[in-house]
Amino acid sequence: MSGELLYGIHSVESALNHDPANILELYFESDSQNARIKELSDRARELGLKPHARPRDALDRMTGGARHQGAVARYRAPPPRAESELGALIEQAGREALLLVLDGITDPHNLGACLRSAEAAGVTAVIAPKDKAVGITPTVRRASSGAADRVAFFSVTNLARTLKAIKQQGVWLVGLSSESKQDVYAIDLKGPIAIVMGSEGEGMRRLTSESCDFLARIPMRGDVESLNVSVATGIVLFEALRQRAA
Amino acid sequence: MSGELLYGIHSVESALNHDPANILELYFESDSQNARIKELSDRARELGLKPHARPRDALDRMTGGARHQGAVARYRAPPPRAESELGALIEQAGREALLLVLDGITDPHNLGACLRSAEAAGVTAVIAPKDKAVGITPTVRRASSGAADRVAFFSVTNLARTLKAIKQQGVWLVGLSSESKQDVYAIDLKGPIAIVMGSEGEGMRRLTSESCDFLARIPMRGDVESLNVSVATGIVLFEALRQRAA
Repeated sequence: MSGELLYGIHSVESALNHDPANILELYFESDSQNARIKELSDRARELGLKPHARPRDALDRMTGGARHQGAVARYRAPPPRAESELGALIEQAGREALLLVLDGITDPHNLGACLRSAEAAGVTAVIAPKDKAVGITPTVRRASSGAADRVAFFSVTNLARTLKAIKQQGVWLVGLSSESKQDVYAIDLKGPIAIVMGSEGEGMRRLTSESCDFLARIPMRGDVESLNVSVATGIVLFEALRQRAA
Repeated sequence: MSGELLYGIHSVESALNHDPANILELYFESDSQNARIKELSDRARELGLKPHARPRDALDRMTGGARHQGAVARYRAPPPRAESELGALIEQAGREALLLVLDGITDPHNLGACLRSAEAAGVTAVIAPKDKAVGITPTVRRASSGAADRVAFFSVTNLARTLKAIKQQGVWLVGLSSESKQDVYAIDLKGPIAIVMGSEGEGMRRLTSESCDFLARIPMRGDVESLNVSVATGIVLFEALRQRAA
């Protein structure tokens, strides 16, 4: 079988809604008690697809035991974006450009949640380094509710070089760092900007941090000065949206 | 062995920093290449604990294969809070009361991330129903970076009754619902409030939603009108903090 594995109700539903032509095979749990599985199966038939009914353990084997909720698909994922397309996307977005840079996220659930937030925030593109970072895997697709295949995701060879190039296009780089004294709410997040987030354990790499025009922190109250990276990403993306709508 | 299982560098570090007296046993991977494991082990010895060195596969067996990063502990978790304590906490917080109500979160990673955000936001208490919701498990502890044992978490028998009681104490209930027409940024989040979040798939239950004084949504731009519940929780908690600091 060819294609990427897609599983979970949200992910399969999202592929059915947005990109049914690229669903190669579709499997639903044959004796599922979940009404949403029945709905998805009906919807697939309406779209001219031929879903297969399979017992739960057959689906378990397909996903290697990962939680599929009774819905599994083989999906022809869009090809990775060429780095050369990034400049055009930024130019097209103009003053509206809103980029998300993820420097070295290694947990697929975190990357998935970041991509889901990025899509909900309507970002222009998400940029991540190829090395020492997780790419788009089935777990990422599932955690992203399918956003992984819809946001413009660029996996780049040399992050520092890419950051330099987008700065030359007039994009301001705002990096999140718990060591900054500046609150993110005090930073102007209107106009063409890139929000730059570090990895789960280590934060941004030095070169990335040095590329930023501003460093800012999310002010906290508790004992523990740390948030999950996908939560912090959501907070800053939606603070940018709030400012841009005002 | 007694006590709760705690694993992952962040969780074990957090127990060492905040509650070392309740660490019953401590195990580190014997030939770990991670400098942070060495640091944690040194710190444990300074605190008078006697960490054991164990091969990686012994730790794997302890955690049943869950990702432990070379650090595992047996921990005497604080006893569950009695619901009767909640009223006093709210009274003590007065105008500063900031509560988080989670109506039926089932994914332990999501609950963990919510508790971590709740601690970072300095909430007064987190309230969740006992039924049809995940409680504090080792996975929740790990995902919360230890916040699960530090935030005042109340697992209540009858959520609607508890919500009624906190309203009688003068707390306003703000529920997040994608069906609301009101943006959360337009709602006054100062003063004693509870932020009420629904479950991953279904949102708030009807009774919970009807208890709310306000319903609000996070305005989105993308195709997909949904965020991960822990991300949405973080956005609203920190919007409340932003307003309260202004």
